[in-house]
Amino acid sequence: MTATILDGKAFAARLRQRIAGDVERLRADGITPGLAVVLVGEDPASAVYVRNKGRQTREVGMKSVEHRLDAGVAQDALLTLIGELNADASIHGILVQLPLPGHIDSAAVLDAIDPAKDVDGFHVLNVGRLATGQKAMVPCTPLGCLMMLRDHHGSLSGMEAVVVGRSNIVGKPMAQLLLGDDCTVTVAHSRTRDLTGVVRRADIVVAAVGRPGMVQGDWIKPGATVIDVGINRVDAGEGKTRLVGDVDFDGAVRVAGAITPVPGGVGPMTIACLLANTLTACCRAHGLPEPEGLTP
Amino acid sequence: MTATILDGKAFAARLRQRIAGDVERLRADGITPGLAVVLVGEDPASAVYVRNKGRQTREVGMKSVEHRLDAGVAQDALLTLIGELNADASIHGILVQLPLPGHIDSAAVLDAIDPAKDVDGFHVLNVGRLATGQKAMVPCTPLGCLMMLRDHHGSLSGMEAVVVGRSNIVGKPMAQLLLGDDCTVTVAHSRTRDLTGVVRRADIVVAAVGRPGMVQGDWIKPGATVIDVGINRVDAGEGKTRLVGDVDFDGAVRVAGAITPVPGGVGPMTIACLLANTLTACCRAHGLPEPEGLTP
Repeated sequence: MTATILDGKAFAARLRQRIAGDVERLRADGITPGLAVVLVGEDPASAVYVRNKGRQTREVGMKSVEHRLDAGVAQDALLTLIGELNADASIHGILVQLPLPGHIDSAAVLDAIDPAKDVDGFHVLNVGRLATGQKAMVPCTPLGCLMMLRDHHGSLSGMEAVVVGRSNIVGKPMAQLLLGDDCTVTVAHSRTRDLTGVVRRADIVVAAVGRPGMVQGDWIKPGATVIDVGINRVDAGEGKTRLVGDVDFDGAVRVAGAITPVPGGVGPMTIACLLANTLTACCRAHGLPEPEGLTP
Repeated sequence: MTATILDGKAFAARLRQRIAGDVERLRADGITPGLAVVLVGEDPASAVYVRNKGRQTREVGMKSVEHRLDAGVAQDALLTLIGELNADASIHGILVQLPLPGHIDSAAVLDAIDPAKDVDGFHVLNVGRLATGQKAMVPCTPLGCLMMLRDHHGSLSGMEAVVVGRSNIVGKPMAQLLLGDDCTVTVAHSRTRDLTGVVRRADIVVAAVGRPGMVQGDWIKPGATVIDVGINRVDAGEGKTRLVGDVDFDGAVRVAGAITPVPGGVGPMTIACLLANTLTACCRAHGLPEPEGLTP
């Protein structure tokens, strides 16, 4: 048996196309969704992400604004900028690219963003809303995983889901979303004693630990769905590198029922869900009905 | 084998005694922790709870304030009262007794409480803080369960914990607390397919579903610790009633390593933890070091 490959690149392309259609209709009514991205410092990976976000934002017809600040910027200056973006009615989503330099209190910065514009879903109010089943802005990567799971399975109700990793950015919100969809949810992590046994009982495995190939193929229950959130750059010999996930793909693909590849799986969904969140935030800001299928 | 009985009544008494000592020292410095309880309507069970809370609050030397409002009170009037209590420096904890009458938006009322005075830990900001591992006010019942588990086991790291029930008041915050203590945590619920099998793999079972005796004795892994949060009143024949938990105690006590009885297990811990939270809130409000062992 070979697993169905869950093609995140194609899924994300369809999602962006659909968002572009929604944006077009909004613009016909004089409303342009706007996304502001704030980048502090010169981290090359962050610069690439920000560039991609800007390009995809424009491609779906949204307004894209980028603010690039010096790595030494004072926290107060950053907070002032966020205050301005909060007050700017043409901006519906604000994203501060992480990580921030060490002299800045990331939590304070994230919590300064208007929760209604918090398209990353990291504001503590949105975390609380998600955890209590209220309307929230939901972190992009787990939202993308949920969309792919729903697309593949329809209902997730009653499935055993195991989330490996308990970060605030992926693992914990992913667990909340799966619980909201009526999965029996287990969160495993570095202190889990029998990780093999825990993963082996899962109908759905979400791996989000940032350790290349950690989840072995023979840990996967035959027919399970494997969502690999890891994006790890490893040595590929001859001075080259390549991207691998947290799952041993070659092993898992022979056992799983469905699996996301790396690259081309969850990765492309993250920016697409950022655009989805911006669209949702824009509709909420204007008191319009929320676009269907873009929120939990 | 017969399980160790985890005596919550005795534990809560020790906890209150310890809190009384802390309060005495605070009062010597001119600081009296104050708890305000707001009761809307005439629900007899709620009236009993509120009376018990008031009595225990006074017994540990704290200031106790009760506000009883008519069942028909307007939401605005309730919000005005909460605003006054938020502004009252002699009040460090505010508890609105649930359930509220149907014409009142409970979430709006709970979120109107100053998060620093939210001794029930139901404010969405506190939920978000708990979920992200920040300093929070933690819901009393799961906090009490955590204290009993830590007292019995010392470290919970690596243990398999299964929480049956996913309410915002017990199940979900309990799962967060167990995860914070490095358990591998599973949340099971009404849609869980093989509840027996899920419970059977747990080193720690927390039952919080509100269904008398639902968790059977032969579901328990030999030697596991069973925390029974349920308090259900059932017919005891001859026109009498009695309280039972969510666990079949007589069956489970023969298999478990340790178990909380009902009554006398988790129940008494809830008000004791309310007092603990009020003490913590008072110390935070005055910029004093937090009392040890009362927070996660």
